[in-house]
Amino acid sequence: MHDREFGNGNGYSNGNGYNNGNGNGNGYTNGNGNSIGNGNVNVNGAKVIKMKPMDSELLREQGHIMVDFIADYYKNLQDSPQDFPVLSQVQPGYLRDMLPDSAPDQPESLKELLDDVSKKIMPGITHWQSPSYFAYYASSTSVAGFLGEMLNAGLSVVGFTWLTSPAATELEIIVLDWLAKLLQLPDHFLSTGNGGGVIQGTGCEAVLVVVLAARDRILKKVGKTLLPRLVVYASDQTHSSFRKACLIGGIHEENIRLLKTDSSTNYGMPPKSLEEAISHDLAEGFIPFFICATVGTTSSAAVDPLVPLGEIAKKYGIWMHVDAAYAGNACICPEYRKFIDGIENADSFNMNAHKWLFANQTCSPLWVKDRYSLIDALKTNPEYLEFKVSTKDAVVNYKDWQISLSRRFRSLKLWMVLRLYGSENLRNFIRDHVKLAKHFEDYVAQDPHFEVVTTRYFSLVCFRLVPDDGDEEKCNERNRELLAAVNSTGKIFISHTALSDKFILRFAVGAPLTEEKHVTEAWQIIQKHASKFTRNGHY
Amino acid sequence: MHDREFGNGNGYSNGNGYNNGNGNGNGYTNGNGNSIGNGNVNVNGAKVIKMKPMDSELLREQGHIMVDFIADYYKNLQDSPQDFPVLSQVQPGYLRDMLPDSAPDQPESLKELLDDVSKKIMPGITHWQSPSYFAYYASSTSVAGFLGEMLNAGLSVVGFTWLTSPAATELEIIVLDWLAKLLQLPDHFLSTGNGGGVIQGTGCEAVLVVVLAARDRILKKVGKTLLPRLVVYASDQTHSSFRKACLIGGIHEENIRLLKTDSSTNYGMPPKSLEEAISHDLAEGFIPFFICATVGTTSSAAVDPLVPLGEIAKKYGIWMHVDAAYAGNACICPEYRKFIDGIENADSFNMNAHKWLFANQTCSPLWVKDRYSLIDALKTNPEYLEFKVSTKDAVVNYKDWQISLSRRFRSLKLWMVLRLYGSENLRNFIRDHVKLAKHFEDYVAQDPHFEVVTTRYFSLVCFRLVPDDGDEEKCNERNRELLAAVNSTGKIFISHTALSDKFILRFAVGAPLTEEKHVTEAWQIIQKHASKFTRNGHY
Repeated sequence: MHDREFGNGNGYSNGNGYNNGNGNGNGYTNGNGNSIGNGNVNVNGAKVIKMKPMDSELLREQGHIMVDFIADYYKNLQDSPQDFPVLSQVQPGYLRDMLPDSAPDQPESLKELLDDVSKKIMPGITHWQSPSYFAYYASSTSVAGFLGEMLNAGLSVVGFTWLTSPAATELEIIVLDWLAKLLQLPDHFLSTGNGGGVIQGTGCEAVLVVVLAARDRILKKVGKTLLPRLVVYASDQTHSSFRKACLIGGIHEENIRLLKTDSSTNYGMPPKSLEEAISHDLAEGFIPFFICATVGTTSSAAVDPLVPLGEIAKKYGIWMHVDAAYAGNACICPEYRKFIDGIENADSFNMNAHKWLFANQTCSPLWVKDRYSLIDALKTNPEYLEFKVSTKDAVVNYKDWQISLSRRFRSLKLWMVLRLYGSENLRNFIRDHVKLAKHFEDYVAQDPHFEVVTTRYFSLVCFRLVPDDGDEEKCNERNRELLAAVNSTGKIFISHTALSDKFILRFAVGAPLTEEKHVTEAWQIIQKHASKFTRNGHY
Repeated sequence: MHDREFGNGNGYSNGNGYNNGNGNGNGYTNGNGNSIGNGNVNVNGAKVIKMKPMDSELLREQGHIMVDFIADYYKNLQDSPQDFPVLSQVQPGYLRDMLPDSAPDQPESLKELLDDVSKKIMPGITHWQSPSYFAYYASSTSVAGFLGEMLNAGLSVVGFTWLTSPAATELEIIVLDWLAKLLQLPDHFLSTGNGGGVIQGTGCEAVLVVVLAARDRILKKVGKTLLPRLVVYASDQTHSSFRKACLIGGIHEENIRLLKTDSSTNYGMPPKSLEEAISHDLAEGFIPFFICATVGTTSSAAVDPLVPLGEIAKKYGIWMHVDAAYAGNACICPEYRKFIDGIENADSFNMNAHKWLFANQTCSPLWVKDRYSLIDALKTNPEYLEFKVSTKDAVVNYKDWQISLSRRFRSLKLWMVLRLYGSENLRNFIRDHVKLAKHFEDYVAQDPHFEVVTTRYFSLVCFRLVPDDGDEEKCNERNRELLAAVNSTGKIFISHTALSDKFILRFAVGAPLTEEKHVTEAWQIIQKHASKFTRNGHY
């Protein structure tokens, strides 16, 4: 167990000329003539005066403290990496003994709370925003994304219908049109046609709602008793959320066809296999209705070939969804746009702007060709949400485009990211990450003990220690050991996958603070820990 | 269209001794000796130097600006209500013409952005946090809830498995145990037994995952081909998300039994109707498997009687879910705990802490009696998320308790709300709201032109103008007109529902800034606009 001070005095008390925790006498005045010591708040934990849930001046004072706490966190992640093991090194159950068994009756101070964050929570944090985080695809934040989350939490509106905050609905429509244009998506995904965009929380929600839309569309034609005959297709590299979405929707597990891939297509779905599977299923009386294609798989950033897959989907009248959760973001750069060529024949397209467009989680834009199929599957009409708007048909009620009624004002932060950086900077952020991945790939390629396993398209490098004398089993074990060894240093965090029964290491660049020196240092750590497995052990 | 300045100069530039938008020369120094003018950032919108997505000192500077913007918003909501129509008065499509058609190539300044928020976004905001918001159940925020969202956005970790941030998983377990104890939930909902808690995004997600868990549990027994025979029960007052969850899970629409309620049970579900429906269905060869009981319906805060319903559920081995999204929060007060008496026989219990526990959206704790039924329905095991933990069985991976893989660190803000207020203050916040609702109810009761329609249990008052000479149709029309009239003032926002074909007005107290004067003013506005319908028009 770590029991260290967070940031060595850089925490909540950072010399900004104001102090806190006493509820009065603070040196920070806010120019409005208000101080929070107005008789209703005392955060000392002494005999407590009645509080109010919202007090604008307390929000101001404590908000400033929290901003500094968070700014210091990012500063320290860079300046004092030794204090922040990237992969948390705690043992299961570590926190239970550090916290009381029940909630306090009386208020505690923000100082006490932030002390606990530093001492008790921080050791259990795996630092996704660390510059030396190279594990799963990043959940990338940014200053603009963070500010957007703040503003969202501050306004705290619930835009489930147009009426409940018209700006929340309208900005989402506009910003998703903006993003669709940056991605050069076909016009039918824009709000001006029959399609449109909606921000889901995650790619999992996105694939679920389109599976449901496609399911209900086909069942309307063939009758719902034929649910057990519905079949879906994807590659064996497809994200686990696709299978989960199908099972949620009642699709029979044995009707989920996960087509085999291998290195011959760099783990992309072979169109020939798809067409054969469809033909076979049709001959057997099954009803093919959904194809999930992926651009940038979670495992190895493999790309399914949208052009031939889309032609097959069109030929058989099957809904094709494109899951581009990670790599879709890169497609705002002209040089990566080719990876979604063929998108014209897709019925839906999804990417996670919180993955690689710096939008802070969660923010998962989904575009559909036919919004009515989505609405038909998901609409509700309780009396208490009915309202009259003069031009009712023109109004979008996003509650009918998603699982939940309630929804956050997520377009705000996407709008802020797009405006505060501009699309050119966003393209450069992505290009910088790809450059860093290329840099790492070059290190790997130059070391005869290692190999790059798949063709790299984006910012993920799949690599491994090469087998000794062709012993694949031993090789897997060594790579597994190497992974555990480097991650236990706390200096970097990388992850793994399996491809054709090989244990593969994943090095994914995407954290917002990562620079070349972090990549170089990561490679040195990997080499050092690999030395016990390499013949001459000279590292 | 409104085209006003937000807050009349109280916006982003608030006299706090620092200015912004120039990237240098600001009067606010942060004690760390850093200024953001370090050559890589210029937010003036002039010829742009390359930016970085994350810069701790830019986050610090702009974070402070945003805190003031938000604190000013809350201050102005109280001090200058005339600038903030509670229900937005814009027309559909208002925003399209105010914003460009595409994202900018080059960055814009935070000043430009916040100006646009004030001038273009604010008019389209329906102010859920306004002290004069009395419409749908509140999405209540608080200083602590807001700070929690900030910290969550700042750390930006993704705790889908234990490993990816142990603190995120462990704090959630601990805090949901805390809250379960405050609610006096039975021990089997605690993490120490077979059950446990998990924070869903919304009540909609919560009811969906338990419908799926119950569905898969029964289908495992009877075989999945019997899906079309599964039936579910709820009252006709149940939230629309229940029907939606069932349809998502493939339950046939005609097998969703929404039992009729009326004023004789104050719109609570009659246990006798439930048992009759079950008996009838069993006789017809259907398979009853799920009951959704509600404590505090969305329509009228009706309470289904858990004791008899739970006994029926137990007798027939049916999963009983309790949706207490709104009123469950009140059950932390001993005097309201009786409304969930009988919870011992429930299989799952859900409440929205963002509704009435000041947790900022979204935060919807769900407890289940048997966590394995949830996990059996929702687990995924992709290789890239496999990892070894010494005591693997002890580790919770919350990805298997919810729809999505990704998840926010929501327990952080719930922990902060519980600690920074303490349970006694939270109880008082709830009691204050109930008192205000009682105050409004008294006004209504004293006016012969109005009537209180249902027995009030919590902070919602259902009322209406009484019919003239028993003409119910005309009465409905008048209440509809009255609703439109008061909401078009922008001074208050109330909502409506339908009960036994009557058009009913809803007055729900729950916004964090509401005080007695706001309630009194609301009643005066309602009375004034009602005067055209009342015989002597003397208001």
